[in-house]
Amino acid sequence: MTHWARFSDGNGRSGFGAIDGDRIVEHTGDLFDRPSLIGTSIPMEGLELLAPCTPSKIVALWNNFRALAAKLEKQAPAHPLFLIKPPTSLAGPNQAVRRPRAYQGKIAFEGELGIVIGRRCKDVPVEEAMRYIFGYTCVNDITAAEVLNEDANFAQWTRAKGYDTFGCIGPMIATEFDWRNSHVVTRLDGVERQNYPLADMIYSPAEQVSRISHDMTLLPGDVIACGTSLGVGSMKDGSTIEIFIDGIGSLVNTLAA
Amino acid sequence: MTHWARFSDGNGRSGFGAIDGDRIVEHTGDLFDRPSLIGTSIPMEGLELLAPCTPSKIVALWNNFRALAAKLEKQAPAHPLFLIKPPTSLAGPNQAVRRPRAYQGKIAFEGELGIVIGRRCKDVPVEEAMRYIFGYTCVNDITAAEVLNEDANFAQWTRAKGYDTFGCIGPMIATEFDWRNSHVVTRLDGVERQNYPLADMIYSPAEQVSRISHDMTLLPGDVIACGTSLGVGSMKDGSTIEIFIDGIGSLVNTLAA
Repeated sequence: MTHWARFSDGNGRSGFGAIDGDRIVEHTGDLFDRPSLIGTSIPMEGLELLAPCTPSKIVALWNNFRALAAKLEKQAPAHPLFLIKPPTSLAGPNQAVRRPRAYQGKIAFEGELGIVIGRRCKDVPVEEAMRYIFGYTCVNDITAAEVLNEDANFAQWTRAKGYDTFGCIGPMIATEFDWRNSHVVTRLDGVERQNYPLADMIYSPAEQVSRISHDMTLLPGDVIACGTSLGVGSMKDGSTIEIFIDGIGSLVNTLAA
Repeated sequence: MTHWARFSDGNGRSGFGAIDGDRIVEHTGDLFDRPSLIGTSIPMEGLELLAPCTPSKIVALWNNFRALAAKLEKQAPAHPLFLIKPPTSLAGPNQAVRRPRAYQGKIAFEGELGIVIGRRCKDVPVEEAMRYIFGYTCVNDITAAEVLNEDANFAQWTRAKGYDTFGCIGPMIATEFDWRNSHVVTRLDGVERQNYPLADMIYSPAEQVSRISHDMTLLPGDVIACGTSLGVGSMKDGSTIEIFIDGIGSLVNTLAA
């Protein structure tokens, strides 16, 4: 298994590489198309980690966990239900989440597994879908909760979830990941708020990639946020929020005070 | 006023330029950042026009015309209501619209005005918003109508409108455009199906850019589809659909048979 990360060295230079202990083994070229080993290994201390990829779209699922569906008294959907978070919503590890100007309402965290697409992908059968998954990352699908149902005629999923910095991903991409035996753990200021098994997913990663690839072409670096489960809540300005997935890592962000 | 178009010369070379009668005066560099005149002028005959820009997102409005709101018995919204069509939905002039595999339902046309953003744009006041508009184009906001309300709990706006080739734009970008005195005319196989005044818009272009720039950063080349009005309908496979806006041009696409 490899963990890939992108970084900035603080002097305006960015790069990417494979994690080796407390160092990054730098590579060059295209992360998704046979990147070349440069040969340098850089101590991670002092590097700023960036979002591990730059998706052209983040496809974010709603109602994809049985426990949350049961709590909300919703049926499992007949097809993955999703919206798109734009590329401008992207935020990386430790990046500040910014409250939208003039919005004083609740800002919710949603800890999620993210699927990172590795190859251009259209109309892919489910049995081939795993070949299009490059790896997995942590997602915090941040939501301006009071925007969502502001208009009785139109649920504003895109607006509520599309604000700049509301698509937190990272800290790295794990190329092998046993999702069936892992959990998503969310900690708000150090206090556990979510801890749910990924095995409770309604549409598995392969099913999501297959189904969504019938709805739109998925591109290398695109991210599918697999939806959340029980324990979603809101953050106060200045709160620190951590999404931890065993086997991937810990994505930490702070809601700017 | 300038009309800008992108083209492919049929030999794998693409470019862009300003329309001058039946020729394109080619430019180089960034269309949105002082492009340079190359000096060559190419006859348009024989060129294939491409989508005039390549948006990182197409923000598509719902319920932005008074006549359609009245017909649907909806109030004017308190804020523009929108979804995002992904970059992969983009189609240019004369490009075939493709029916999604395994979808046999109705495919609807929606003739719309498109705003093309010229400058990075965040939290812009309405009185400054016009400075961020590069120009205007025609949009056909194509929709898999029967997908939209397939799930009673979640209106599938993104999925229904996000399929590859469902975001038709073009044929060019007009940098000056008197929207208050223009109409959107939609013709299905030559028969007029929509003819509505842009003056009936609820949120003007400047208001849309200002409001949406408070929701997400808009980037050069991004497109806001201003919403449609009366006369939306569905197309049969093989139909030709034309969106004509006086002062911009005629965007023609065919639903592949």
